[in-house]
Amino acid sequence: MTTDTTATDLAQAGTAAPQAHAATETGRIGIGMVGYAFMGLAHSQGWRNARSFFDPALTPDLVAIAGRDGAAAAEMARRFDWQHVDTDWRALIARPDVDVVDICTPGDTHAEIAIAALEAGKHVLCEKPLANTVDEARRMAEAAQRAAANGIRSMVGFTYRRVPAIAFARQLVQEGRIGEIRHVRAQYLQDWLVDPESPLTWRLEKERAGSGALGDIGAHIIDLTHFITGERITGVSATTETFVKERPIAGSVKGLSASAQDGGARGAVTVDDAAIFIARLSGGGLGTFEATRFATGRKNSIRLELNGSGGSLAFDFEDMNVLHLHDASVDARESGFTKITVTEPSHPYVENWWPAGHGLGYEHGFTHQAADLVDAIARGVDPTPSFADGLAVQEVLAAVESSAASGSAWTAIDSPAGT
Amino acid sequence: MTTDTTATDLAQAGTAAPQAHAATETGRIGIGMVGYAFMGLAHSQGWRNARSFFDPALTPDLVAIAGRDGAAAAEMARRFDWQHVDTDWRALIARPDVDVVDICTPGDTHAEIAIAALEAGKHVLCEKPLANTVDEARRMAEAAQRAAANGIRSMVGFTYRRVPAIAFARQLVQEGRIGEIRHVRAQYLQDWLVDPESPLTWRLEKERAGSGALGDIGAHIIDLTHFITGERITGVSATTETFVKERPIAGSVKGLSASAQDGGARGAVTVDDAAIFIARLSGGGLGTFEATRFATGRKNSIRLELNGSGGSLAFDFEDMNVLHLHDASVDARESGFTKITVTEPSHPYVENWWPAGHGLGYEHGFTHQAADLVDAIARGVDPTPSFADGLAVQEVLAAVESSAASGSAWTAIDSPAGT
Amino acid sequence: MTTDTTATDLAQAGTAAPQAHAATETGRIGIGMVGYAFMGLAHSQGWRNARSFFDPALTPDLVAIAGRDGAAAAEMARRFDWQHVDTDWRALIARPDVDVVDICTPGDTHAEIAIAALEAGKHVLCEKPLANTVDEARRMAEAAQRAAANGIRSMVGFTYRRVPAIAFARQLVQEGRIGEIRHVRAQYLQDWLVDPESPLTWRLEKERAGSGALGDIGAHIIDLTHFITGERITGVSATTETFVKERPIAGSVKGLSASAQDGGARGAVTVDDAAIFIARLSGGGLGTFEATRFATGRKNSIRLELNGSGGSLAFDFEDMNVLHLHDASVDARESGFTKITVTEPSHPYVENWWPAGHGLGYEHGFTHQAADLVDAIARGVDPTPSFADGLAVQEVLAAVESSAASGSAWTAIDSPAGT
Amino acid sequence: MTTDTTATDLAQAGTAAPQAHAATETGRIGIGMVGYAFMGLAHSQGWRNARSFFDPALTPDLVAIAGRDGAAAAEMARRFDWQHVDTDWRALIARPDVDVVDICTPGDTHAEIAIAALEAGKHVLCEKPLANTVDEARRMAEAAQRAAANGIRSMVGFTYRRVPAIAFARQLVQEGRIGEIRHVRAQYLQDWLVDPESPLTWRLEKERAGSGALGDIGAHIIDLTHFITGERITGVSATTETFVKERPIAGSVKGLSASAQDGGARGAVTVDDAAIFIARLSGGGLGTFEATRFATGRKNSIRLELNGSGGSLAFDFEDMNVLHLHDASVDARESGFTKITVTEPSHPYVENWWPAGHGLGYEHGFTHQAADLVDAIARGVDPTPSFADGLAVQEVLAAVESSAASGSAWTAIDSPAGT
Repeated sequence: MTTDTTATDLAQAGTAAPQAHAATETGRIGIGMVGYAFMGLAHSQGWRNARSFFDPALTPDLVAIAGRDGAAAAEMARRFDWQHVDTDWRALIARPDVDVVDICTPGDTHAEIAIAALEAGKHVLCEKPLANTVDEARRMAEAAQRAAANGIRSMVGFTYRRVPAIAFARQLVQEGRIGEIRHVRAQYLQDWLVDPESPLTWRLEKERAGSGALGDIGAHIIDLTHFITGERITGVSATTETFVKERPIAGSVKGLSASAQDGGARGAVTVDDAAIFIARLSGGGLGTFEATRFATGRKNSIRLELNGSGGSLAFDFEDMNVLHLHDASVDARESGFTKITVTEPSHPYVENWWPAGHGLGYEHGFTHQAADLVDAIARGVDPTPSFADGLAVQEVLAAVESSAASGSAWTAIDSPAGT
Repeated sequence: MTTDTTATDLAQAGTAAPQAHAATETGRIGIGMVGYAFMGLAHSQGWRNARSFFDPALTPDLVAIAGRDGAAAAEMARRFDWQHVDTDWRALIARPDVDVVDICTPGDTHAEIAIAALEAGKHVLCEKPLANTVDEARRMAEAAQRAAANGIRSMVGFTYRRVPAIAFARQLVQEGRIGEIRHVRAQYLQDWLVDPESPLTWRLEKERAGSGALGDIGAHIIDLTHFITGERITGVSATTETFVKERPIAGSVKGLSASAQDGGARGAVTVDDAAIFIARLSGGGLGTFEATRFATGRKNSIRLELNGSGGSLAFDFEDMNVLHLHDASVDARESGFTKITVTEPSHPYVENWWPAGHGLGYEHGFTHQAADLVDAIARGVDPTPSFADGLAVQEVLAAVESSAASGSAWTAIDSPAGT
Repeated sequence: MTTDTTATDLAQAGTAAPQAHAATETGRIGIGMVGYAFMGLAHSQGWRNARSFFDPALTPDLVAIAGRDGAAAAEMARRFDWQHVDTDWRALIARPDVDVVDICTPGDTHAEIAIAALEAGKHVLCEKPLANTVDEARRMAEAAQRAAANGIRSMVGFTYRRVPAIAFARQLVQEGRIGEIRHVRAQYLQDWLVDPESPLTWRLEKERAGSGALGDIGAHIIDLTHFITGERITGVSATTETFVKERPIAGSVKGLSASAQDGGARGAVTVDDAAIFIARLSGGGLGTFEATRFATGRKNSIRLELNGSGGSLAFDFEDMNVLHLHDASVDARESGFTKITVTEPSHPYVENWWPAGHGLGYEHGFTHQAADLVDAIARGVDPTPSFADGLAVQEVLAAVESSAASGSAWTAIDSPAGT
Repeated sequence: MTTDTTATDLAQAGTAAPQAHAATETGRIGIGMVGYAFMGLAHSQGWRNARSFFDPALTPDLVAIAGRDGAAAAEMARRFDWQHVDTDWRALIARPDVDVVDICTPGDTHAEIAIAALEAGKHVLCEKPLANTVDEARRMAEAAQRAAANGIRSMVGFTYRRVPAIAFARQLVQEGRIGEIRHVRAQYLQDWLVDPESPLTWRLEKERAGSGALGDIGAHIIDLTHFITGERITGVSATTETFVKERPIAGSVKGLSASAQDGGARGAVTVDDAAIFIARLSGGGLGTFEATRFATGRKNSIRLELNGSGGSLAFDFEDMNVLHLHDASVDARESGFTKITVTEPSHPYVENWWPAGHGLGYEHGFTHQAADLVDAIARGVDPTPSFADGLAVQEVLAAVESSAASGSAWTAIDSPAGT
């Protein structure tokens, strides 16, 4: 990065158009990450691996990490060679050698940080869901659109799009292999809240998390439906439930695990434990959706099935390197679902990794995301999923909440974003 | 059967209470079956096998079969040693040596035949769905209740209840093995209508079939939910769809297959191709339901998953001898879904068949149904599922149609039958 | 049957050629079954169902059942309408209205009964393994060959050949769908002897059973290999083991279950608990085989995998309605194993049963066997598997035992029978 | 590393005991890697991740990489920040700041490099198989033993031991959860040589590779059997086959893929395409083993099943995050194989990665291997698998070849190494 414009200058510049950083001139691209917890770890690994396995035109340079808990951020920096640690995200944005701001904080902070970064002329990768409200998401999408006019790129972190089997599913649908979509069946099932003594973390507070299972994991299956089908959800009828209304207040947190505070204080759960809804798609198909943290025995089960006029696809994240394909044109005698192990060089992302049959894991999507973002920046094109795609998910989440609040009445999403 | 009361006498007798046939006196029980198609074949096998494998207190005697197509009925009689063939079901009911009337005809005929048979003092087994409307179903349930007062038994043919793995699932739920039910996830997926040239049979005509996928196969997953959980669906929000609006009119039919009439005449499909709905259960859980004939590649896939506070159960009819059980009390290190092959002598119905590991097929449920009905008659108790249970399903079907017709508005089932 | 030749006449006639019974004249064919236990039950169901579901040119008539335990035989007769009960199999063979003798007794009795029946001009169905020794089997095959010259048919009861998925596997191999066979991987796994207190039944006595897991279940996977590949095993290297050397002597037996005698008497197990061997096939491929009653948790798991130069097939009896097909000519991107649910009308035997997706069970193979035998008799052709095919299996069993007894030395089967 | 002893000094020192490097003094440990191809990539990732995810007491420092193809080695160095590139492995060993020599070259070079490194006082990680002959392996094991007396550690790279599901399987066996082992069923199935035009790479040359499928992949299932059971294979009876005798000579190679040289030159395949054998274990159990590159449709399928007196375990690398456990003490009614998703914090290695249900991939075993080796060095204990364990595998490989060459005669391994 050759500019010496300071972050303060940029912040003052408001909507005045900053120029995209001429990252290609130097062959490197500086990354600044806000957040250091579960997602911070996954993103750190993603940036580093992108370089080693995808060798993008711009080499990711892990410049700085910002977080309120300086010790935790410093520990993450130490393990992954982040060069600097800031305790204020504003300082990180102000760094001239940071080209990309990677936002891994809870949803209530996304809008402020992302808009500030975009206005400072930084490319932005923002964790999902894009925001906690449609209004925030819309403002972010607008900021992204303004920034794009100046070559500033933005992306929302729906990493499951970049699981090879899912990216392959989209390819097949786009190629017409399963015809017109009749049914989408999508479930995101977890069980980490089944125990009523499982503590109340920020993920169970409406102010921080926006919603519960709906926004945290339901957002993923909504986005994956948009991604794989290339269509939009146009209306929903929904209901939600909070099975356990009160929980012990959390002390320490690690990943999705936490322990209760001493003293036995309890607090109200203000988000949904589960959200279920039926939907219609822009192409005329029907959808059933289910997001829950109460599916006992299901740890991180993302199940997708699409039935089309010409065939079907089925996926389960519990067996993430596999996609099942049914081709209705095959004679009935040999017809069935083919279990495709998505580890061939001709499958998305796979060529950069291991030989056929040597599967990938959860974390690899973060590497693909980082590599794709850097590639888009280097090539000067807008990456996906865009903030508008993130807004489209937020619109569905809002429609689900609205329907659930009004006797499951059908709630249309009139002009879905990002189409 | 010792009475010589004629069918005419009985029809004239109206609601006057006939006495249960003293079947136990002779050690045999006479069966009269109305219908001779797909279900007629399955029931014939059921009656015959009940005797050979379950050796019930009363020996089923295949007395007569009735059907409008005399040749087809005669052919069925020839193959299974039905002793007589009638072309009018009224004649069959009038036979003094018929103790049980087994109704295997389309839904629009159920009420008339069943009520006539009950009023004639015959035990009745009626194929599902019980009727095409709630009103008919209610009249049938009332007739059954009146008849029961005189020891006349009635049962509706939800045979999937008697797949060993499903009967075992109910046992486990009743024993509290999975605790309080949080989620039911139920799908009945077929694909025999995906081809738009697949002909228009009676199953696609509202007048004959009542509804489409909803009543034909959705009825099964509603009933199985009631059966396994011991709860009732208390409300739904639904939508339905007819993907292919017009089809060639059918000529000959075999099982679920048919060929088009010559001449190319087409007719309107007047039933749903698919019905999806979300629901709540009387115990506080949530349900998602899907019945479709457009799930390409799924032939007869009945999938049930129940998540409870203490564990989970999962079943797929494509692997019908298996039940998956998750016990949440097992330490996480050894926790998972146990694939139980339901072929042990301690599993329901299995002891009468083959050694462990030697699975049963689709038809065995019909044998279990026949054996259980005869056993209930012999012991003088009311079998299940009762007509009231059938009415309960009909109420849910009606609520689904009503919700779908009114913008998916939440539709409560206030006092579910059969509870 | 119009002949009045008596059984005594026939027995006296020795090898003098009796004429095949003119079964077709009357449109019926009389069945006489020797044995009444597990296999007797399965065969009874097979004969009866053959008529109802396959409607063969000759109608099986269940004439007589013979067994030393007259009460048990009479009970079987009562349940399946066998018309007569004999306590001596010679009397059964002597019946003029018996056209087919169906032998369901332990292996040590097969040769005597089968040869007597063939010489009496009766068609013979003999349970597997054909005999307890190669010598017996050879004499039986010779007797069958002599009888065949006079139109007398014989078949050995390797029923698993008639599981639709397995019959379909053979079709695919014969059509060249998987090319040249490189590997056969065959396992028959049971666990009913894991408990050292499980009693000593006739199946554990060398004199009665011939061998243990090897002959009882290993015979099946040898025959299935011959059947599916159309090749012969040409040599083996083997080892066998008896893990539990002594067991309580059995009292009552049911199916594969038994309880111990009172008094605690124990006896020596004189057969193998497990047999494993490697093999070569006549087409140049390699085979690995394993038959055991000590595979804890596997109840009746018959697993077959064939890898060919052009594709692969995989089958597991635990999911008996499924065949997995891999086609190596498919582009790697869409390549995988297709899970074919073998329930389509175009699959072997299926058209006579239920609609697609409605699976069959263990017992259906017995119906297919009965129907195929009657059909062969009616058409005047020799059915398979022939006694020569049974002898071929016996030769492999003998080679396995011989190799195991001589330090696993390679043991060739020089001119395999039945090729 | 504080010593300034040069490599020349060390080489001259011969068997004179060098002291273990005082790595703990500086908190870092210098890694030198020989090789840069498929295994070099996997090991590079392993060393780097070990630091970031396991934070061992000594921080791996990627000092130098050596390889004959300097450009390829330099490219690997660039992507993973290896600090130096040597074209001679002797120079790499001579580096004073290299504490661990990591050998990722073909088997024919292992002995020379490993022994030189050990004698130079370097800890050694050597890829599998340990060597191409028992003699080489024995010399290496002896060198390792001498070095161990001076605190120099050595490990052979059987990374599959460190797949969490496999490490967990061993724990369960050691805890007695499945009792006495009766059967091991082990297969390593690949298909990358099915095409007869697939080129002749070094892996198909006996001089370089030692053997074919046997040593390359068969070695893994032999080692895994030793590892999981804690027993040794004590004898084998084997056969091997080369289905395609001649292939086009290879040009460029990537991973397991290669393209043919121009000009159409062909060469003889001098190793086995497939090896199958039966075996006995030191605890009295039986084993069946199969290693092949001709299992069409199987890419990297490592299947293990163990049947014990108290239960069973089953694993398939195609679903690598899963272990199936059967517990024979569970009542038959609820008995079955439990599908354990091995992603809980209480499972081996998992706590350092992601939340439950977020699976790992192929490469993670290399991280675990690196972390465990560094940990053993830091703690001053000998890591496993030792060179003696590698020798034990080599002894079985040699016995298999010997048996195959002598009519599959039983070949005992009298005093297995590493017991």
